Amino acid sequence: MDSPEITLANYEAVAEVANAAQATADIGLFTTNNLWILVATALVFVMHLGFSALEAGFVRRKNVVNILFKNAMIIGIGLLTYWFVGFNLMYPGTNAGGWFVWPEFLLHPTAADMTPAYGDYTYWSDFIFQAMFAATGATIVSGAVAERIKLESFLIFAALFVMIAYPITGFWKWGEGWLDELGFYDFAGSTLVHSVGGWAALAGILLLGPRKGKYTKKGIRPIRGHSMPLAAVGVFLLWFGWFGFNGGSVLSANPEYVSLVFTTTSMAAAAGAIGSAITGYLMFKSHDVSMVMNGILGGLVGITASADAVSVNSAVIIGLIAGMLIPLSITMFDRLKLDDPVGATSVHLVCGIWGTIAVALFGNFESGIGQLSDQLIGIAAIGAFTFSFSFLLFFLLRKTLGIRVSEEEEEKGLDIGEHELPAYT
Amino acid sequence: MDSPEITLANYEAVAEVANAAQATADIGLFTTNNLWILVATALVFVMHLGFSALEAGFVRRKNVVNILFKNAMIIGIGLLTYWFVGFNLMYPGTNAGGWFVWPEFLLHPTAADMTPAYGDYTYWSDFIFQAMFAATGATIVSGAVAERIKLESFLIFAALFVMIAYPITGFWKWGEGWLDELGFYDFAGSTLVHSVGGWAALAGILLLGPRKGKYTKKGIRPIRGHSMPLAAVGVFLLWFGWFGFNGGSVLSANPEYVSLVFTTTSMAAAAGAIGSAITGYLMFKSHDVSMVMNGILGGLVGITASADAVSVNSAVIIGLIAGMLIPLSITMFDRLKLDDPVGATSVHLVCGIWGTIAVALFGNFESGIGQLSDQLIGIAAIGAFTFSFSFLLFFLLRKTLGIRVSEEEEEKGLDIGEHELPAYT
Amino acid sequence: MDSPEITLANYEAVAEVANAAQATADIGLFTTNNLWILVATALVFVMHLGFSALEAGFVRRKNVVNILFKNAMIIGIGLLTYWFVGFNLMYPGTNAGGWFVWPEFLLHPTAADMTPAYGDYTYWSDFIFQAMFAATGATIVSGAVAERIKLESFLIFAALFVMIAYPITGFWKWGEGWLDELGFYDFAGSTLVHSVGGWAALAGILLLGPRKGKYTKKGIRPIRGHSMPLAAVGVFLLWFGWFGFNGGSVLSANPEYVSLVFTTTSMAAAAGAIGSAITGYLMFKSHDVSMVMNGILGGLVGITASADAVSVNSAVIIGLIAGMLIPLSITMFDRLKLDDPVGATSVHLVCGIWGTIAVALFGNFESGIGQLSDQLIGIAAIGAFTFSFSFLLFFLLRKTLGIRVSEEEEEKGLDIGEHELPAYT
Repeated sequence: MDSPEITLANYEAVAEVANAAQATADIGLFTTNNLWILVATALVFVMHLGFSALEAGFVRRKNVVNILFKNAMIIGIGLLTYWFVGFNLMYPGTNAGGWFVWPEFLLHPTAADMTPAYGDYTYWSDFIFQAMFAATGATIVSGAVAERIKLESFLIFAALFVMIAYPITGFWKWGEGWLDELGFYDFAGSTLVHSVGGWAALAGILLLGPRKGKYTKKGIRPIRGHSMPLAAVGVFLLWFGWFGFNGGSVLSANPEYVSLVFTTTSMAAAAGAIGSAITGYLMFKSHDVSMVMNGILGGLVGITASADAVSVNSAVIIGLIAGMLIPLSITMFDRLKLDDPVGATSVHLVCGIWGTIAVALFGNFESGIGQLSDQLIGIAAIGAFTFSFSFLLFFLLRKTLGIRVSEEEEEKGLDIGEHELPAYT
Repeated sequence: MDSPEITLANYEAVAEVANAAQATADIGLFTTNNLWILVATALVFVMHLGFSALEAGFVRRKNVVNILFKNAMIIGIGLLTYWFVGFNLMYPGTNAGGWFVWPEFLLHPTAADMTPAYGDYTYWSDFIFQAMFAATGATIVSGAVAERIKLESFLIFAALFVMIAYPITGFWKWGEGWLDELGFYDFAGSTLVHSVGGWAALAGILLLGPRKGKYTKKGIRPIRGHSMPLAAVGVFLLWFGWFGFNGGSVLSANPEYVSLVFTTTSMAAAAGAIGSAITGYLMFKSHDVSMVMNGILGGLVGITASADAVSVNSAVIIGLIAGMLIPLSITMFDRLKLDDPVGATSVHLVCGIWGTIAVALFGNFESGIGQLSDQLIGIAAIGAFTFSFSFLLFFLLRKTLGIRVSEEEEEKGLDIGEHELPAYT
Repeated sequence: MDSPEITLANYEAVAEVANAAQATADIGLFTTNNLWILVATALVFVMHLGFSALEAGFVRRKNVVNILFKNAMIIGIGLLTYWFVGFNLMYPGTNAGGWFVWPEFLLHPTAADMTPAYGDYTYWSDFIFQAMFAATGATIVSGAVAERIKLESFLIFAALFVMIAYPITGFWKWGEGWLDELGFYDFAGSTLVHSVGGWAALAGILLLGPRKGKYTKKGIRPIRGHSMPLAAVGVFLLWFGWFGFNGGSVLSANPEYVSLVFTTTSMAAAAGAIGSAITGYLMFKSHDVSMVMNGILGGLVGITASADAVSVNSAVIIGLIAGMLIPLSITMFDRLKLDDPVGATSVHLVCGIWGTIAVALFGNFESGIGQLSDQLIGIAAIGAFTFSFSFLLFFLLRKTLGIRVSEEEEEKGLDIGEHELPAYT
């Protein structure tokens, strides 16, 4: 090109290169963002394993197969019902600011859905990530009602809960319903997932009553889990999965946010462990490993609402307080004779509420008081709906199929009673 | 730039920016694609842990160390033999449409191999991903022949199987051999990995005979696995790993395909759980957790051949049928007195065949019948070769070293017999 | 554009497109690189689970809760102390070539830290990845001193070790201190992480003495681990996590290096399994599963210093030798009456030293002898500092709080003694 003149052909060639480069760069960023949603989906899946191991470890040997059966079925039921109706109920794409949209059944992605103009993720990534989330709510309930609930009643509850209750309150916020319009903030679901599971657990616990022999005239009898290693494996896997649960909730691989979320999530879990261990030691004068485990989980639940919206220093404080709440809450529920074999209400309900409040306390909002009010409205509305739905459903099941196994079966264990198979030989 | 004239220097600067942008964008996409192959490799590695836990959980306490020893050794042997010869045997890069190429030994990547012009992955990503795949075949066999096979004979079998048999049939399709030319379709290996492992397992089962006391005059005696939690952990980890097994088989991070594959894979697993649970309940009137577990695995194996080629709705049907096949198949093998302690033949052979047929039924091919014929040819050819190879090899081992432990050792357990170490104290 | 003239406006539009394309491409590459550091962080986190399971499996039933408690607390303590001071101590960003920099407390990222001009990762990714690394050092110690150390003394040791000792020697190399200037090479920490943990373990073992009944007049009594499946799960998870430990240490998703590192890491682990299994069989005439497990770990530790700097063939040799060292080293430590319940000193100290030497033998350096000398200086300096620090700290704890539980508690087990909770019921 030794002439100082530029031909039109040359010019057009450069324009083409520039446009092609932009297109490749767009596809590249889209590919990375989408890949992260998928990897996060796999990590959220691991949480199902984490819950299974945790709950199986915290129950007695005679009820282990029952927990494993329920939790394996919940993933199957959860994914299928979410495909059948839940996804459309939660993300109707219409009625912004509303309360409910009558859903379509099954998935009908349009041609536009299938050709994303290089947004952050595909239709199917969106669906499968959300579907993995949905099933976790029911898994939380599973542990709280363990060792005494009838299998079939529980599976019916889980199916309807994942299919109807979770998506409706999910729509209120993540589906751009009325709570979203209000300004309620819940990044990855301290309320929308965890306290929702916790309220359902509470309804179940109330209607089921405590396990035989837990609350006696002589006081509260601790019923120990049958395998601490299994429970510990579960807790570690939950932490691992939470990288996807919170990190994936950024809904892209945005470096600024995903990096912050990984850090706040980990620091809150770490602080939760220490907060619970110290408080537990002061209360019980004992180095209780189950407090450390539930402290980690409490810290994780606590940071979930605000993981992208608070500083790392604030995350430490949020996690520490969540951890401190664990032994207090476990003691409180026991005093109220609300028997929760795995501590799910303390971890998911109490720390879920705490985390949702913490958003307003530590986040950077125009009006902290205004935000606090929005958070409390969200907590109350979602709590009222979920608890009522769950209570009514468990109540109807109690009136029909029954929800509690016979005393004899409870004594013998549900593994033999419901499955004719011991967990160990 | 207040002059309307454009200088050549300015023009050239823009051309340079455009070219540089294209180069960076190309590197970016290459980096993402390659990273996904590596992350998928790590997930496929997890499947080895999944198989180990599943198989260890499904055998009796006295044979647990033996399973763990075998499965840990198989990864070592598998990676080393694939490095020594398997990779070159399976991907010779020549003789397209052929049956066999005499391989080079060890890896000799050329300069061109080492400087990929921004394709989708590097030479080493390709190798290590394929190597992790290769070893899974032998792991499938390990469970089926458990509790009675001689350790050294099994290790020799596993080495030769991974080194020779798996790469040869792999070449037929993935190495661009005659089955690929024919039009046989097997996305991630319902046949090339799973039924191959299943055929080898069947050959071993036939030559070994059933475990002592399994089939008695009084009928079939169920021999229960020693730890359901361990087996359940294994199944969940296998599902987790399958995201890499199927997702990585896209061989890039292509958003459209990887998203679809994650979704079809998960939905088939979910449907497999439900299909097997219901069928199992109808057949045995019992909520059998091992049916749910094997149903999940059956769904996963079933979708593996078609995960990128069917709709999500079809994936549900494929998985459901795979799940329904599990209790039927387990019952059938037991009636035939083919004793498979972990159900590997039902999961990997039966559902592998089903999945390979399902490609033609649910995929979008020019001629469904024509495709079905190609699929059946592939199933039969690979089955005939693999079964013959395995039968002959086990037969030769039986004639020489022997393949079955003594009655006394079987009674005492292989942990003491072969390893002088109990699994638990 | 049917005129042959090019207007300035057109020209400027193309320039803008080209610049925008470059910006998007830069963000894309940055996003992928940063995402890999975060995924690697999650994988390094899994190593904490791996260590917990491995160590819990290798101790007796009566000391399992104690191991789980310690390892769960170590992550909490490790992340918090690294946030409090460790990160600043290790990466002060000043005093290149030096020995020590008085650190700032807590993290004070500057505005520049928060706006990376599209480097490879963000400030928070860097921090959380390094923080996960830091805590692994203390976890290595945990296994070696198991079954006899006082809980509180161990936790104080772990906190000070992670807070002070690990970051100081880390600064020498990775913080660009004097060993970095010297030319010492340690890719991902055969010395900086693993032998550092090993030296601290050795100091603890020396001051604690062996477990009761291990070395008797009649010879060495093997004390068997209580659960081989748990230990095996731990080893597999450690391998899985090592993909992040080594792969993430590339500090970007660079396709060439990350692919090589995944391959060298896996091949060394495979060769370690085989090297240890064969050597162990020749020495003990028994197929010892714990040798295979520790052989895998030895191979992983051995390749850690050189995973990005040697050929795949060399990685096989490095791993094989590491594996062969395992049974020899375990026997040697037992002859020296240095009682290490999990073999941590053999795996992390001996193979860590071997791996650091192997860099000079197999890497491509200008002067092999010169490099070997640098490596030996690094090994010796870091060993001397870490061993002295640890010995002194354990010694002070022994003089004050005491470091060994009472004979009665050791007999009864630490689970009851320190935690009032059995691992299993």
